[in-house]
Amino acid sequence: MNIPPDAGNGLYGRRALLRSGLAGGAALLTTSAFADTKLRRPEWMQTPGGPMSAAGAPSRFEAHVQRTSIRSQPGTDGSGVSSTPLQYLDGVITPSRLHFERHHSGIPDINPAQHKLYVHGLVDRPLAFDTEALARYPMVSRIQFLECSGNSSALIAPQAADLDCAAIHGLLAVSEWGGVPLSILLEEAGVSPEGKWVVADGADAAVMSRSVPLAKIMDDAIVALYQNGERLRPGNGYPMRLFLPGWEGNASVKWLRSIKVTEQPAMSKEETSKYSDLQTDGSAKLFTFPMGVKSVITSPSPGLQLRGPGLYQVSGLAWSGAGRIKTVEVSADGGQSWAAAQLDDHVLPLCATRFRVAWRYNGAPATIMSRATDESGAVQPTRAAVMRGRAAGSFYHMNPIQTWRISVEGQARNVYV
Amino acid sequence: MNIPPDAGNGLYGRRALLRSGLAGGAALLTTSAFADTKLRRPEWMQTPGGPMSAAGAPSRFEAHVQRTSIRSQPGTDGSGVSSTPLQYLDGVITPSRLHFERHHSGIPDINPAQHKLYVHGLVDRPLAFDTEALARYPMVSRIQFLECSGNSSALIAPQAADLDCAAIHGLLAVSEWGGVPLSILLEEAGVSPEGKWVVADGADAAVMSRSVPLAKIMDDAIVALYQNGERLRPGNGYPMRLFLPGWEGNASVKWLRSIKVTEQPAMSKEETSKYSDLQTDGSAKLFTFPMGVKSVITSPSPGLQLRGPGLYQVSGLAWSGAGRIKTVEVSADGGQSWAAAQLDDHVLPLCATRFRVAWRYNGAPATIMSRATDESGAVQPTRAAVMRGRAAGSFYHMNPIQTWRISVEGQARNVYV
Repeated sequence: MNIPPDAGNGLYGRRALLRSGLAGGAALLTTSAFADTKLRRPEWMQTPGGPMSAAGAPSRFEAHVQRTSIRSQPGTDGSGVSSTPLQYLDGVITPSRLHFERHHSGIPDINPAQHKLYVHGLVDRPLAFDTEALARYPMVSRIQFLECSGNSSALIAPQAADLDCAAIHGLLAVSEWGGVPLSILLEEAGVSPEGKWVVADGADAAVMSRSVPLAKIMDDAIVALYQNGERLRPGNGYPMRLFLPGWEGNASVKWLRSIKVTEQPAMSKEETSKYSDLQTDGSAKLFTFPMGVKSVITSPSPGLQLRGPGLYQVSGLAWSGAGRIKTVEVSADGGQSWAAAQLDDHVLPLCATRFRVAWRYNGAPATIMSRATDESGAVQPTRAAVMRGRAAGSFYHMNPIQTWRISVEGQARNVYV
Repeated sequence: MNIPPDAGNGLYGRRALLRSGLAGGAALLTTSAFADTKLRRPEWMQTPGGPMSAAGAPSRFEAHVQRTSIRSQPGTDGSGVSSTPLQYLDGVITPSRLHFERHHSGIPDINPAQHKLYVHGLVDRPLAFDTEALARYPMVSRIQFLECSGNSSALIAPQAADLDCAAIHGLLAVSEWGGVPLSILLEEAGVSPEGKWVVADGADAAVMSRSVPLAKIMDDAIVALYQNGERLRPGNGYPMRLFLPGWEGNASVKWLRSIKVTEQPAMSKEETSKYSDLQTDGSAKLFTFPMGVKSVITSPSPGLQLRGPGLYQVSGLAWSGAGRIKTVEVSADGGQSWAAAQLDDHVLPLCATRFRVAWRYNGAPATIMSRATDESGAVQPTRAAVMRGRAAGSFYHMNPIQTWRISVEGQARNVYV
């Protein structure tokens, strides 16, 4: 490109990409000239290929694209987490098979014909809904993110750990969630005037239980039946789950079984001991539901090898529990200068947005980072700001700027600046 | 609901849904009262559930949700089609494993390290790109539909065939497609002034070959590398395919191997003998690329059983190769009256849009249909209008209004009106 970069160390942002269409009239990108006009046919063009099938699968050459960082509590195999392999994905949708997991007592094998959702407590008419009844209600479907409030907790470590993007940030996924607005079911049941919260219970062995303000439930909560077009998968709450757009994932109770309207929150273990934010002054922030504005560069990132100097796409995801992403800035000089990134169509509320810049990597060590701003004006904070006032070991709701250090070997590593 | 319907035979459209929130203060929908406040725990709450895993899978209770209507040319198993099971899906995204197939000589098993895309013909600099090189270019990703131009061809039959929604309309799918704008690659190669078309060849044994006007290529064509967040699946062109938003699927050549810039179209078999529209006057429409405005009710539809009178969701998909869907109307009285359907957020261009109405089924036979209008003002035509001037056996580009007849047994059947 014969045009000036938008920021230091060879970064071409939205401005440059829009002006040039990226191709400045010369083969400046990584391509090879091609002279042979008689194309030799490879072996897979010599004989008919594989058959039609009832269900497709990824290529055998993509077998490395799996959920990673799988771990569980000692003596268990279902009380833990697995991570979305963000560094191998592009766009915003997460394939359902790769959606991260966080289960507290494994995945129940629920027969939908024997499962019901009970709506009770401070209501005029307690009601029970089976899956087939629920599917008769007019639904909504929206593409939105789900993030575990423990995502990125690795960044509380005093020294930057040698972990990849999935291990640090992979408790994030984006799906099209489809289901019945819970407001319809509660209006049908008739909420008593003193009802201010609902307590949602799951049908797993842990009976995951969370309290949610009634206002959120009536605003945009759904009982989700569909994920990315098909019925929920067991690891994501089959046959039905609560889904609370923009809020910490744990409150979107999977395998939803009971919605009880109450005056007060239940103060369950999972909202007092866990999923709360202990401060250095000994107080704890409770019910800190909305996820903060956040972004991360997924490529390049640890494990993806840069093949020498030249032009590369720098790409990542940005999201916020407050609504739409407004801007994402990228720096290739450790935060001294920033270029506004190009955002993919369409920037949806409470969804991740894919951002991109072009970067001319000169082969020298470099420090790259991204910083998101949402439509509320909130700006993704530095790590120092996120750690301020946070008690030792308090690891929920971590949304600091992520810094990757690129080595002369073209490898990225998690660092603090 | 104590509010008047928006159209005949108990249809509640967008107007009623917005006004009432659907719940009029009484349990008018299909629910059962619930009095037992001591909930008995089912067996799957008694012991820990299944483990975390590297990849998730659908529930064993959803094993019937597969691609259907699989058929191939005699003596082959890879020269045919399989259909997206639209009647079991909701929202707009099609899970990649269920994306319909139309292959002309099976699915090649391509090693991406040995595959290249050649850009040549009327260009200043012939170029070759491997997958890794392509992935260094700034990409775009967009959620858009792909429809085989032979979709819905069953509706040319003189008598309405007893087929389900997938068998008639299932050569349609929606994915997030991510890749490199082909305009960037062609600008880099330098297109000669006399270049007006490109001929795209696939790396399958059939060497699927289609001619595409250069204007479309420079407008919004991409070399797709990603589908729904992950690399393309083999059945959808791994490691790369052409993707032409809104145009007949066949022209989005899978396993893309060669882009040759030419003055004239190649007049290949697949654009003269096939994928053209023969008229009764003996002429044939060639290069009829954009798919027409269309909609179909996916639920209820054949194979989905209504369980007696009561309120049901009527839901379906609408799409158009001309841009965004503007309105969808639904009728429950055979087209005598229509209600404007509620459209899901967000109505995206060249994407399918999910529409919904509520319907009070009174148990009597009923005739339901949907009719889409796009932002260009085009209205989905009747079957009679689509058949007018069409030669016998000419089956591409069928977008008539689909009519389902609901029997007293609550079963839907394809009919003509």
